[in-house]
Formats: sequence, C-alpha cells, structure tokens
Amino acid sequence: MDVLVSLCKRRGFVFQSSEIYGGTGSCWDYGPLGVELKNNIKRLWWRDFVQRRPDVVGIDASILMHPNVWRASGHVENFTDPMVDCRECKHRFRADHVDAMPWVHYCAATKGNKFTVKPGEPCGHCGERRSLCPQCGKGTLTAPRQFNLMFKTFMGPVEEDAAVTYLRPETAQAMFVNFDNVLQSMRLKLPFGIAQQGRSFRNEITPGNFIFRTREFEQMELEYFVNPRDTVDGRPADEHWHDRWIEDCLAWYKRYGLRAENLQLREHEKDELAHYAKRTVDIEYRFPIGWSELMGIANRTDYDLKQHAKVSGKSLTYFDEERKDHVVPFVVEPAAGVDRSLLAFLSDAYQEEEVRGEKRVVLRLHPELAPVKVAILPLLKKRDEIVRACHAIRDELARSWSVAYDDTAAIGRLYRRQDEVGTPYCVTVDVQTVGDAGEQGDDRVTIRDRDSMEQVRVPRAELVPVFRELLEGGAWKDVAARFTPAAAKDSA
Amino acid sequence: MDVLVSLCKRRGFVFQSSEIYGGTGSCWDYGPLGVELKNNIKRLWWRDFVQRRPDVVGIDASILMHPNVWRASGHVENFTDPMVDCRECKHRFRADHVDAMPWVHYCAATKGNKFTVKPGEPCGHCGERRSLCPQCGKGTLTAPRQFNLMFKTFMGPVEEDAAVTYLRPETAQAMFVNFDNVLQSMRLKLPFGIAQQGRSFRNEITPGNFIFRTREFEQMELEYFVNPRDTVDGRPADEHWHDRWIEDCLAWYKRYGLRAENLQLREHEKDELAHYAKRTVDIEYRFPIGWSELMGIANRTDYDLKQHAKVSGKSLTYFDEERKDHVVPFVVEPAAGVDRSLLAFLSDAYQEEEVRGEKRVVLRLHPELAPVKVAILPLLKKRDEIVRACHAIRDELARSWSVAYDDTAAIGRLYRRQDEVGTPYCVTVDVQTVGDAGEQGDDRVTIRDRDSMEQVRVPRAELVPVFRELLEGGAWKDVAARFTPAAAKDSA
Repeated sequence: MDVLVSLCKRRGFVFQSSEIYGGTGSCWDYGPLGVELKNNIKRLWWRDFVQRRPDVVGIDASILMHPNVWRASGHVENFTDPMVDCRECKHRFRADHVDAMPWVHYCAATKGNKFTVKPGEPCGHCGERRSLCPQCGKGTLTAPRQFNLMFKTFMGPVEEDAAVTYLRPETAQAMFVNFDNVLQSMRLKLPFGIAQQGRSFRNEITPGNFIFRTREFEQMELEYFVNPRDTVDGRPADEHWHDRWIEDCLAWYKRYGLRAENLQLREHEKDELAHYAKRTVDIEYRFPIGWSELMGIANRTDYDLKQHAKVSGKSLTYFDEERKDHVVPFVVEPAAGVDRSLLAFLSDAYQEEEVRGEKRVVLRLHPELAPVKVAILPLLKKRDEIVRACHAIRDELARSWSVAYDDTAAIGRLYRRQDEVGTPYCVTVDVQTVGDAGEQGDDRVTIRDRDSMEQVRVPRAELVPVFRELLEGGAWKDVAARFTPAAAKDSA
Repeated sequence: MDVLVSLCKRRGFVFQSSEIYGGTGSCWDYGPLGVELKNNIKRLWWRDFVQRRPDVVGIDASILMHPNVWRASGHVENFTDPMVDCRECKHRFRADHVDAMPWVHYCAATKGNKFTVKPGEPCGHCGERRSLCPQCGKGTLTAPRQFNLMFKTFMGPVEEDAAVTYLRPETAQAMFVNFDNVLQSMRLKLPFGIAQQGRSFRNEITPGNFIFRTREFEQMELEYFVNPRDTVDGRPADEHWHDRWIEDCLAWYKRYGLRAENLQLREHEKDELAHYAKRTVDIEYRFPIGWSELMGIANRTDYDLKQHAKVSGKSLTYFDEERKDHVVPFVVEPAAGVDRSLLAFLSDAYQEEEVRGEKRVVLRLHPELAPVKVAILPLLKKRDEIVRACHAIRDELARSWSVAYDDTAAIGRLYRRQDEVGTPYCVTVDVQTVGDAGEQGDDRVTIRDRDSMEQVRVPRAELVPVFRELLEGGAWKDVAARFTPAAAKDSA
C-alpha cells in the first residue's frame, strides 16, 4: 500500500486534502491524473449501466435533502456506531474495534516495560489480557455510547433545531424520494433502474487505509425496481434480478482489468443483514490491506418505498396494467464506491518487473481507464522540426483523447514515466520522421506499446484511425502486424 | 420562466429536491434528461478547456477541506451578507435587497386597504414610503447583522469548536491549496491552468429563481497561473490572458448555441471589485428573469497564493528558470456555474412555433448538448417485426450514444415529444422497412431532422456512420442531399 500511496502523490493521482495545513486526516484530493482515472471509471460505469441499457435511467440529486428523508430511512435513529473514550488520553474508538486492535501494555512482570501486544492475545510475560486503553495503555474506557455517523449542518440563516439537515450518507435515498417523478416523466415499465453517481459523507470514527475508508467519498449506485408478483424462470423476479446484477457487476470489474483471483463473492450472514434486506452479497477484492468490500448488492425489498410513503403521506406505487392493481416494487441495489474501485484498479494494475537488469514499474491499466491514452515524445528536443511535429500530433490527438507531451528527459526515462502512470501508447518523433541534412523525412512516427514494449513505425496520417482502433478494443498485435517493426525494441 | 420550470418537471429535466416532503426550497434534483444535459455541459467544458489544451490540467478535490483554508481565504471573516429580521412575521431579508422589493402596505387613506406598492415608490393614495416589513406590512425591521454564508459542520465524532469545518463555498481554493503538488507532480511551466468541476454550497438568505440561485450548486472553475513579470505583446501577461479568457469563454457559450444578442460583458466597477481583484468581467446572459451573471472572469492577482503561504507557512512559489528567481504567479479565474449554464442553454433553445395550425414546442439544443441524440420510433407498434427492428437499432446506436425508444403514442405525437426535449434526430421503422404480405422490405429507415422536420430514407446499415457524421458537427443538408427524401414532410 505504501508504494501505491507514494506513486499516487508523486505522479499526481491522489494528494492528501489540504496537505499544506496538515491535512484533514480523512479526505483526499484527486490530482491531474487521478481525476482522469476517476472520471473514466464513472463514465464507463454510466455508459455500461445507464446509456447502453434500455431499462435504466440516471438522476443527479442534491447532497442536502429534506431532513425527513433521513427520518424515514432510519438513518437519524439507526445510522450509528457505538464508541468508547479513553478517560486518560481522550482517544476515541469504535467499541466493536477495540478487541481487534494491538494494545499498548506496561508490563509489571518486566519492571513496567512498554510492549505492544497482538490483538486478542495476553501479555507473554505477565499473562495479563487487555483491560486498559489500547492506545496509551493507561486509561480506562467509558461505556459504549451511540454516535450518529451523519454530518449535521443548518440550512437557512438560523442555527436552530428546525433548520438541522444532513449531508447525505448514501445516494440511494434520492432514487426512492424521486421514484414517482422519474416514473411519471419517463413513462417507465417495471423492471427498471434509476442510477446515480455522487458524493456521500460519513463521519467515520476511524477512517483510514488511504482512499479505502474516508469521510467524504463518491458512490455509483443503482436501484433496480422489480414487480414482486412477477416470476422469471419460475423464481420470484427480485431473486432472479439479484443474481443477474451480481453477475453483471462482477463481469464489469473483470472487463476493465481486475483479475478473477482477486475477486470473490461473500454472502451476508443472517445476523449481519441490514433490517431491510432480504439478502446481500458483497463483491470483495483482495486489496493491499486484505480481502475487503468493493461493492455490495442488496435486495432491499419494498422497505424504502413503503417507509417514504408512510412518512411523507404520498403514494409511491406502480400501477400493474396486467393485474389492474397498484403494487409497491421490490428493489435490488448494486452499490459501488468510486474511490474503492479506483484503488482496486490501481492496485491490480501495479507491477514491477525487470527489463534488461533494471526495475520497470508499470501500471497495466485497461486502455479505457488509463488517464493518459497517448504520450507524444520527441527523441531530440533540440531539433525544432521534431518538437513542432510533436505539438502538431498532440493537438490532433487531443481532439479525441487525453494526451500528454513530455520532453524533460531522455527517451528511455520518458517511456518509464509513462509506464508508471499506465499510458498504453507512446508516439515518438525522430530525425527519420522529419528528415535531416537535406534529406526528406519519411513522415512516419514510432508507436510504442506499454505492455509488450514493442515498437512499430506508422505513417503519421494514420495515427488517428490507428488509435481509434487501439483505444476502442483493438488488439496491439493486429495493428502491429500491419506496420514495420521499429529497429530497436524499446531502446530504454 | 414558469413554462420552463413546468417543462423541466414534466419531462424529467429538473425536480424539486425532496418534493414528497415539501421540498427544501433551495435545492433541485436533475432527472433522467437533466442529468444527461448537465453531464454533457460538464464533459464539453472539460474537453474544450482541459483535454484539448496543452496548458491546463484538472483536479477533483474534496468538499470538506481544512478549516484554515477558509481562514486564509478570508471566507470565515468576510463571506457574509447583512441581514434584517421582521419583528412581527419573523421573515428574514438581505438588508441590501429590502429597498428593491415591492412592499405590502395597509393604507390609512383608504380605510386600511391592503396594497402592494412598487419598489422604491410611495403609496399613490397616502404618499407614505416604506417604513415597515415589505412582506407583512406590519412589523419593524431589526438593524442589519452579518451572517456567514458558509454551511458549518463538525468533522470527527465530537461536536466542539475544534472540529468545526465548512462545506466549500467555491471550488477555487482547492486549486491554490494544491498548487505545489500539481506543479511538482506534473512538471508544469507558466502559464498553466488548474481546472475543477464540483459542488459548492452557500447558505443564501434568499435563494430563488429556479436553478439560478440555489444553496447547493455546481461550479466549473479554472485558475490560470501566469508569470507577472512576463509581457505578451507589450502588455503584462495577466492582462493579456484575462482578455484571452474572456474571449474564449464567450466563444464557448456561442459555440454551443447561446445567441450573441443574449450575451453581454459587464465590467465590474471599482467599488464592487472584490478586495483581491485587479479587474473582473462578468459574462451576462439575458435569462427569463433579465440580464444576470452567467459567469465571471477575475484577475485575482497573487492574493490567494500569498495568503495560503502566509497562513500555512509553506512556500507557494514558482521557480522562474530564466530569471533564476522565485515568483508568486498571478491568477486569472474563469468561474462558471453549471446550473446557470444549463438554464441559459435551455432558455435559449426553447421555442414555440406554429406547424400546420398546431403549436410545436421545440428545444433547439446543440446536438452535443441534447440529452437524447436519437429516438427510435415504431410506426406501428402492433407489428412485431417493426418493434424488433427498433430494438435492434436502439441497441446498436446505444453503444455510442444516449438514445430513446418510445411506442406509447401515434407517430406525430412521438415526434412532438422528442422536439420538446431537444432530440436532434428520430429514426422511424415502418412497414416498408420490414416488408409486408410476402413482399420483402427495403431495409431502409426514415431519419427525421428536428429543426427542419425534413425526412430522408437511409439504408439501415448506414445509420451508425450517418449519425457519427451528424453528431460530430456534420450538417443535416449535406447528409440529406445524399439520400432519398421520404414521401411526407413530417407527417405529424
């Protein structure tokens, strides 16, 4: 993980938020490459799950909603963590995390020496088990108290109870609250989905692990409404669609590069299911911190629509034309974190390998995810014609793709820099391209493939169609076979 | 404006936030068509100002930043509005708005009859000028008090002063705070820009006018850093770039459809300039509520970087290679509102016209902005082959574009529905396409142009290249000239 965090900062993927002020400890900012990667993840998810599907529409709701939304949803009452405080050092912990933490111990059997003892184990010298604060080893802990994880604020000019509102802790509720407006304005028929991407906020007591758990994060959620009276292949429609969404989501992550061996499904046990859920399955990813939730797919039944109907007094039903009757749809919810997805894609793509005795760091990001698609590099930055040609190519390719130009090092080093940020292709302009000493250039440039490090020379005029092919799913070997291999295989 | 608001709700562009709970009064949710329009605006801005330019990079920072950011920027102290309260009805007003409001008056000269008097004018009966609350006409107003417009919240588990933080009131500060991280990681040379899109929050006392002034809104901001020691064409670099950005922004709005006669520049007077600004120019648009700010382009000088350097104790300078010296860049800031831009595009595109004696409502949105690019419509929904062909076309086009299928009315009405939401092209499948009574179909479909209502018949296999041409800048008349006109000009 440390290697990733360091790469992310050094190369402009992720910075600590407000770093010059010491950071906030729980929020992160995406830098120039990070924002492109994040936008690519969001755009592909939207393209695959909204645009290309006939049965899903999107919305984009405000973060500040009416406080009754969170009363109806149960968040005001139940979205809490139990916490305990150390009476000595004032450190605050989640009560359910304390037993799983290593603990600081001043051991009487060794003249009060300070040890850090493994979670759940007794001291090897005196046999004592943890009884004091795991952080300072001195204070006793208070009894657990419930702490609401929603960020509270005041809407309107007066700070009073009547004006209290919350930053949304999830995007999902906006789909339930807007259910009827979306249904009516779009003339939808069950089953259909409403999707949303956007920021959510949870005042976690113990955020951490880089962008894995933060207080501000971005979600991609979809509420898929089905008619609970329908059956598909002899099974209740909600159960059928639940399985379909698990498959579709898993396939999506694999399609953009996560390896199968780093993905697994985890069925929630009966006793960990949310009270509204009939069944929940997590897609877990093998993060650098171990197997953890990447996304969850829950069958939330008709709980949410019924709750909002009850609290608002508005009808939130669907008219079943066939049965001539109103019905409250069930909902299957695939809910993914953008930041976690980004961490998973980065982590899966990161590889170190040895090339001619030197370490090469390469991010094998899927081309559609890569923040920079093509880097244009001059072989000699002192030759004006070469630099001019590079700029012209840059401008032409930038009309369609995110590209970069770099001339601040020798070519080998420039290639390595692009490998490290996952740029799938580089274009190099050299003397042969532009000509030399009265000899005319061949107007061909070198394309270099990140993964194989192979190089071919391609007529400049064909760059746009070639990259259209390569960046829209074409294989390097098919393209490479059509052109002349360049003299040297990656001169770096 | 009412016509637009009603269209927006009915057709799924914009809904009142939390409408089933009576709304929040100051936030709005984008529906299925609204989110596509909004995303298109953001994507085009990002493409034109970040991706295609060699001198601009993006970031995506957290909304919750360190509170010292807002101390350094001056927002904690100065981001306030003066407000007054009515002692009777408790209504709260911006002190500087009261004189410009119509006022309720119980006129003694007419036995206490209630009138609403025009702003700034005396009562026509008794000659009295406004002295009481303009809302209820009864209470006296308090003296003005300063009210900070930032939303306050608490980060971490304890609600105490030390944990106070704010929802960002602008995205700009993140560019200053991340200046050094971006500069170093991307090896940038002046002049360069850092751009960001995202939500901001201002606890406005009097939000209103639909999505024109809301408490939660989305910004597209760019900070363009220049070397104040440089000159361009004999002028200080910051002044040169200020003019360039004004031109570029104005051209951008025109390019995507705003009419020149609805746009004007307004130079800020000396006494309305923010204290940090050397010069500010607003681009104003003729909204349904009158000429108002669409975006502002400010020369913020070196104020922000210097303030953050002072408060954080970190150096925020640029090393000037030529002069071998550190310099604090000046910054030119083009700052636009996404919601206001959307309102302007909608408002400019909205037209009512008469077609064969009936009113046609049409949104003449630029094709790149239109939420739905192509609608696929069956002429007869009872013919299975026609519906199947429609679905196949839908799936094929949906791989590249946002498309719609609708079969819930007769063709004339279906066309009108698409006109009303700005869909530039419709594809119709009829009996001639699929064949009838043993006769083979011609496998041609009708494309209908929103603006001219002309129709041509096109071989189905050519739909994708034809739409690629039309949706990437091609003209309808050029495409139409290559195909056979359909029998009837818009049968609606």
